[in-house]
Amino acid sequence: MPANSGRVLLAYSGGLDTSCILAWLIEQGYEVYAFMADVGQEEDFAAAEKKALKVGAKKFFLEDLKREFVTELIYPAVQANCIYENVYLLGTSLARPVIARGMIAVADREGCDYVSHGCTGKGNDQVRFELAFYGLKPDIKVIAPWRLPEFYNRFPGRQALLTYAEKSGIPVFQTAAKPWSTDENMFHISYEAGILEDPNTTPPTDMWKLTTAPEDAPTTPERISIEFKAGLPVKVTAGEKAYTDAVDIFNALNTLGRKHGIGRIDIVENRFIGVKSRGCYETPGATILRTAHIDLEGLTLDRNVRSLRDQFTTIEFSRILYNGHFFTPEREFITSSIPTSQRTVNGLVRLKLYKGNVVVEGRESSEGLYDEQQSSMDELGGFEPTDTTGFIAIESIRIKKWAQANIRKGQAGVAPQDVYGSRV
Amino acid sequence: MPANSGRVLLAYSGGLDTSCILAWLIEQGYEVYAFMADVGQEEDFAAAEKKALKVGAKKFFLEDLKREFVTELIYPAVQANCIYENVYLLGTSLARPVIARGMIAVADREGCDYVSHGCTGKGNDQVRFELAFYGLKPDIKVIAPWRLPEFYNRFPGRQALLTYAEKSGIPVFQTAAKPWSTDENMFHISYEAGILEDPNTTPPTDMWKLTTAPEDAPTTPERISIEFKAGLPVKVTAGEKAYTDAVDIFNALNTLGRKHGIGRIDIVENRFIGVKSRGCYETPGATILRTAHIDLEGLTLDRNVRSLRDQFTTIEFSRILYNGHFFTPEREFITSSIPTSQRTVNGLVRLKLYKGNVVVEGRESSEGLYDEQQSSMDELGGFEPTDTTGFIAIESIRIKKWAQANIRKGQAGVAPQDVYGSRV
Amino acid sequence: MPANSGRVLLAYSGGLDTSCILAWLIEQGYEVYAFMADVGQEEDFAAAEKKALKVGAKKFFLEDLKREFVTELIYPAVQANCIYENVYLLGTSLARPVIARGMIAVADREGCDYVSHGCTGKGNDQVRFELAFYGLKPDIKVIAPWRLPEFYNRFPGRQALLTYAEKSGIPVFQTAAKPWSTDENMFHISYEAGILEDPNTTPPTDMWKLTTAPEDAPTTPERISIEFKAGLPVKVTAGEKAYTDAVDIFNALNTLGRKHGIGRIDIVENRFIGVKSRGCYETPGATILRTAHIDLEGLTLDRNVRSLRDQFTTIEFSRILYNGHFFTPEREFITSSIPTSQRTVNGLVRLKLYKGNVVVEGRESSEGLYDEQQSSMDELGGFEPTDTTGFIAIESIRIKKWAQANIRKGQAGVAPQDVYGSRV
Amino acid sequence: MPANSGRVLLAYSGGLDTSCILAWLIEQGYEVYAFMADVGQEEDFAAAEKKALKVGAKKFFLEDLKREFVTELIYPAVQANCIYENVYLLGTSLARPVIARGMIAVADREGCDYVSHGCTGKGNDQVRFELAFYGLKPDIKVIAPWRLPEFYNRFPGRQALLTYAEKSGIPVFQTAAKPWSTDENMFHISYEAGILEDPNTTPPTDMWKLTTAPEDAPTTPERISIEFKAGLPVKVTAGEKAYTDAVDIFNALNTLGRKHGIGRIDIVENRFIGVKSRGCYETPGATILRTAHIDLEGLTLDRNVRSLRDQFTTIEFSRILYNGHFFTPEREFITSSIPTSQRTVNGLVRLKLYKGNVVVEGRESSEGLYDEQQSSMDELGGFEPTDTTGFIAIESIRIKKWAQANIRKGQAGVAPQDVYGSRV
Repeated sequence: MPANSGRVLLAYSGGLDTSCILAWLIEQGYEVYAFMADVGQEEDFAAAEKKALKVGAKKFFLEDLKREFVTELIYPAVQANCIYENVYLLGTSLARPVIARGMIAVADREGCDYVSHGCTGKGNDQVRFELAFYGLKPDIKVIAPWRLPEFYNRFPGRQALLTYAEKSGIPVFQTAAKPWSTDENMFHISYEAGILEDPNTTPPTDMWKLTTAPEDAPTTPERISIEFKAGLPVKVTAGEKAYTDAVDIFNALNTLGRKHGIGRIDIVENRFIGVKSRGCYETPGATILRTAHIDLEGLTLDRNVRSLRDQFTTIEFSRILYNGHFFTPEREFITSSIPTSQRTVNGLVRLKLYKGNVVVEGRESSEGLYDEQQSSMDELGGFEPTDTTGFIAIESIRIKKWAQANIRKGQAGVAPQDVYGSRV
Repeated sequence: MPANSGRVLLAYSGGLDTSCILAWLIEQGYEVYAFMADVGQEEDFAAAEKKALKVGAKKFFLEDLKREFVTELIYPAVQANCIYENVYLLGTSLARPVIARGMIAVADREGCDYVSHGCTGKGNDQVRFELAFYGLKPDIKVIAPWRLPEFYNRFPGRQALLTYAEKSGIPVFQTAAKPWSTDENMFHISYEAGILEDPNTTPPTDMWKLTTAPEDAPTTPERISIEFKAGLPVKVTAGEKAYTDAVDIFNALNTLGRKHGIGRIDIVENRFIGVKSRGCYETPGATILRTAHIDLEGLTLDRNVRSLRDQFTTIEFSRILYNGHFFTPEREFITSSIPTSQRTVNGLVRLKLYKGNVVVEGRESSEGLYDEQQSSMDELGGFEPTDTTGFIAIESIRIKKWAQANIRKGQAGVAPQDVYGSRV
Repeated sequence: MPANSGRVLLAYSGGLDTSCILAWLIEQGYEVYAFMADVGQEEDFAAAEKKALKVGAKKFFLEDLKREFVTELIYPAVQANCIYENVYLLGTSLARPVIARGMIAVADREGCDYVSHGCTGKGNDQVRFELAFYGLKPDIKVIAPWRLPEFYNRFPGRQALLTYAEKSGIPVFQTAAKPWSTDENMFHISYEAGILEDPNTTPPTDMWKLTTAPEDAPTTPERISIEFKAGLPVKVTAGEKAYTDAVDIFNALNTLGRKHGIGRIDIVENRFIGVKSRGCYETPGATILRTAHIDLEGLTLDRNVRSLRDQFTTIEFSRILYNGHFFTPEREFITSSIPTSQRTVNGLVRLKLYKGNVVVEGRESSEGLYDEQQSSMDELGGFEPTDTTGFIAIESIRIKKWAQANIRKGQAGVAPQDVYGSRV
Repeated sequence: MPANSGRVLLAYSGGLDTSCILAWLIEQGYEVYAFMADVGQEEDFAAAEKKALKVGAKKFFLEDLKREFVTELIYPAVQANCIYENVYLLGTSLARPVIARGMIAVADREGCDYVSHGCTGKGNDQVRFELAFYGLKPDIKVIAPWRLPEFYNRFPGRQALLTYAEKSGIPVFQTAAKPWSTDENMFHISYEAGILEDPNTTPPTDMWKLTTAPEDAPTTPERISIEFKAGLPVKVTAGEKAYTDAVDIFNALNTLGRKHGIGRIDIVENRFIGVKSRGCYETPGATILRTAHIDLEGLTLDRNVRSLRDQFTTIEFSRILYNGHFFTPEREFITSSIPTSQRTVNGLVRLKLYKGNVVVEGRESSEGLYDEQQSSMDELGGFEPTDTTGFIAIESIRIKKWAQANIRKGQAGVAPQDVYGSRV
């Protein structure tokens, strides 16, 4: 066993896995510092610190990253309406860059040669963490025990870890492990693995931790409003209360969403490594915020900007986040267009929250891109109907040419090989 | 007044506008045939026929287009997950090509020189109808009275139409007009104009026609399942009942959606002509179907196909539908890739319907792209964790090079001009 | 004839058309100011001024817009590698925003109520000019005589204009008109219409004005180098001479390109209004610059940034330019990402110019994204070949799953309906 | 040394590397069959067979894949105008799927347990071969010696291979190795590595093997024509000669291109693994074909189809080919839209070939999408200029709204933060 292999900063969770990794790293001759990030998860940080030091960590660092998580990751994703595969709001993906940056900052300051984490070898998070590490500090060395044969062969299952924990003096709480794994932060909680690996198993009612079930949510709807500037929420009003600080706003929306059963999803998604995976998520506040933001864009964002942004920024930024490519040139490139897209997204959205539903009840803005008179079906509004005749005439030039060509070929209207979609 | 200006096939609705247009066309010397399409809207077709003939139509044609609407328009849009501006499921857009095709078929058969419609000069439908007409029959002549100064200047408001109706012997029902306009078909109903033109006016409770309000929907959830082949629903099971015919399936989903308050939206959208417009929609069955289809694609569609299809087919087909470009070469091009994208989308989705929510409770498929063992976090499943080490190493090559370059320039991690998003 | 219809600023060319328009506007009671932009075209501005005033213009304005044309329009397009339909470098499109802006500035300053131009009703330029006018000054009124029936019916052909010119005292030079039209600026010259309207007619040798024919170009190649900073040319070296000013650089490249027969194209393109049109173009300097810029991006631009930029920025900015959407929110959105994409595009490209060919002979940069050792096939260069094994293993996960599914269905390798392309 | 490790099909080139691999595999106890594909490269196949058998291969297979290479890979890529990073025509990428498929067919038929190849661990070809193998036969086992430490550590350089060759009785020709590597097939030849690894080294004149230097090419231009059906060349006419067979056509174009110095490029490209790499290529025939095909699309392809195809099919199919993803669901998806895009691409293109230039001199088609009269600037051609007034009015609605909003905010014309591009 090597006497001094160097100093490692370990992403520590307080759980069985990273406690065993901590002990194992020490066993391999490393000096280990433990790192925890507070990104809003429910956690007994003091107990974790105590445990880490007991197991043998030389130092323990707890970094409060909640504000930068909200303002630097969550809010840009809200501005860009980020979503992965139509459904997943990227809660875990969004937290990773902030945690990795916090960790590299401590590793730098404390002279660590290595960083280490307890992510498995099949998941997305190992990729997200490590690509973030390399994007921030390209010469950092990473120890990923769950990808080291000497580690994963020695600990083939939970029982082996428990045995090792006992031997190593690691306190193990006698609560039965949940038959799934979770990852929690301010934005969401995720559930995967265990019984969820059968995609046809309905999650048990008591799995959902953050939100009230829609069935149990209040029977009376609640009205709130969200005010946006440049696509960012600057004021949430719910009854008598108003919130204006960025973090307070997000917390308030979480509280409202949890109460009204908002933001549960259950999906099969495609991991970056190409494996399909079943995951369940609760994302209360961000689900409300997304609905409001998209609605306000209807009122305040130019059609063509919206369309280009949807097809380009939204899709590419979402993929970049999911795949852990935050500290990359392509992320820098893609996000550089967000501010321009949001400078007109100013206004207020009124919402009704009720049993899982986020219902838009109205919106207003002084941007002036919506013109009630011009839009009106009941008056001309400075609009010459004959203009549209010209518009349609021009729009049809190319279509008529094509139709004439089809007809000449005996393919009136639609060519014979034309396919609309699959039919059974 | 010209004696014989030619024969016109008029898209007739039975309402005040198209009845006046009918009378006016006759007044201009045209012989008018009236056309109605049954695309599943709630309508007294017999009364409309009687009225058209009374006003002076020489013939009346009612075409039942429900099956082709469902199988040729709705289902391809379901396969491609079509949606406009993140929210609108395109119900009116989907019906237009089918109606236009039915109308051109009658116009051809009956020797009509013209087709005519009652769409306003500011909306999308005039464009959708006319581009479809020209794509099917490029030499057809179109009369759009609401864009003819001699018509719209003569009838500047509802009162002028009422006066003309009285004069022309057009029966007017003394029910007060609703303070909004609607368009209904099997897929949805839309509401716009009138009091809805203020985007901050909450729609009155009694506006919503198709769906029960979530607040009034059953307090007991209902479970159903939908089976798909090649991305199309082939069986819906709800309790004891099962539906397998394409139209029956869609009707059954509509009934379920209406009962459980599913599919209401309220948005500001961007019309093709560049005017923003507020619309409300109820789309019960299609909302359920969309949720199920997207979910099943998670289980059965390859990641890269899904991603390319989302960015390309879904977005472009949706835009094509919205803008009325159905009978065009680009629609033919875009839809030609749908069947390939759907050949693996086979399986069954289980859903819970409850007060506006469509909750996926499980899904299954024999396609085999999901592999429980391979996905599992608890076992290796024929997977070498060391492979991921190589994957990450290769993925990081380019990222490390970029980070090194940044560091050399004194821009460690992230360049100074880097922008994540707008901040207030 | 109205006594005082208001003041018009007319985009004046000195030719027959705009001279007749000038006279006709005066005839309609307008006070007319004439405007010319110097965007680098070969032109006798003094003669044009004299003529305008003789015909009756109250004032004449000549604006030198060459520098802003180069630095604000041409160079961003070079940075983004703009090209329309794979071939056309957008020379006319690029000049229009600069001319329109210059014109609106004069119209504002001089209190003009109207702007007017001599573009035909079928082309792109009317759209480009007018959308630019409206994007800069939404309440400006535009007079486009070639779209006014009272004008175009009165002047159905060249002879009618000649007759009117004679009557109005407009000097007409007795040189025979060329059997095509041209538009010239610093960036290019275009040829269209007349004998070119048959797409199978080879342009006559003497049509090409700017460039030597490759057949007549020097038989000795010439070597030059171009240095870029942030994707912009900052130094061109050709033999003993070096150019560093933005405009000088572009002029020098034009001189070199003309000499060596570089930048002729002959295409059928799709106009914004949906009509196909045949055009020939000479673009000497920009063709050299484009080749060099694209080459340097190979050495200095991250792969993923390049790929995203190509698919979105390049294509969308090119379409925006072609369609005259420069002063729009979508242009603002799209170009906002250009600076980020170009911050690493620094270095030098060496070129050989020879009889129509622009041949890259080498390139260098200190950016460090290219690593000779890492790239080398002859040494390991800090690279573990086993990493690629892991990479391929991970990349193949999803592909193997799909292949297994195909085999299970009896579709080994490739599904039966798979189509690679059309076969005759 | 294991007695019987199984049977391996080795992709054999006849060169030093694969001969040593052959010997080494035998040394490891494998029974080795050698495989060569004739994809049009200049090669002494008989000598290679003799050598393989002498070194110890039990069997030797030569598969003539030229026709399927041309018809199944090259021509679909021509139809889709495939190109990688604006410059590279994908010659090596196109050959790999055909070779891999030929190899898997032999491996299947001959009961091989393994396939093996001599690709290095840093390049694209290892990925292309192996992903193709897995996409065709997911349970095939691959031996990649240059990624096996026991192999690459034993043979760290060319000298070690030479020593081993001598020891193993492998004939070594005493010609000095070229200071670069090449890969040749019907489509192109590539050059990389060695002295080319310095991106600023101009390739020596005698490197280029296929094409005459433009400087040495004929001083008299040569005219040819290419006729296309459905986007595929069906007849090439050059002087008295005409070619109509798919392979003959491609060979004839190669001969013409070689003679006139057409198709040389020199680039720095981004490999799939994220390493930048310098490559030179000669692609004579395909360069001519690409120019002609793109030109004919101008005349015969609808604008919107072309635009969508360029942005998605062309770019995605090119990336798929480059990255070796041919036998994947996404390739099947992307190529399924090619036939629809090409059904109107029928006609003839006339070209002039001269010293590296491919000049389009005219084109014709009976498709009828180009309409000389409608396009004409000299006559109305069934076109109402007033229609364009309406078109521009509608197009400007949204732009005026945006300009008005800017002006209200004091941002007339263009917002202050607006950025066109980088400036030095």
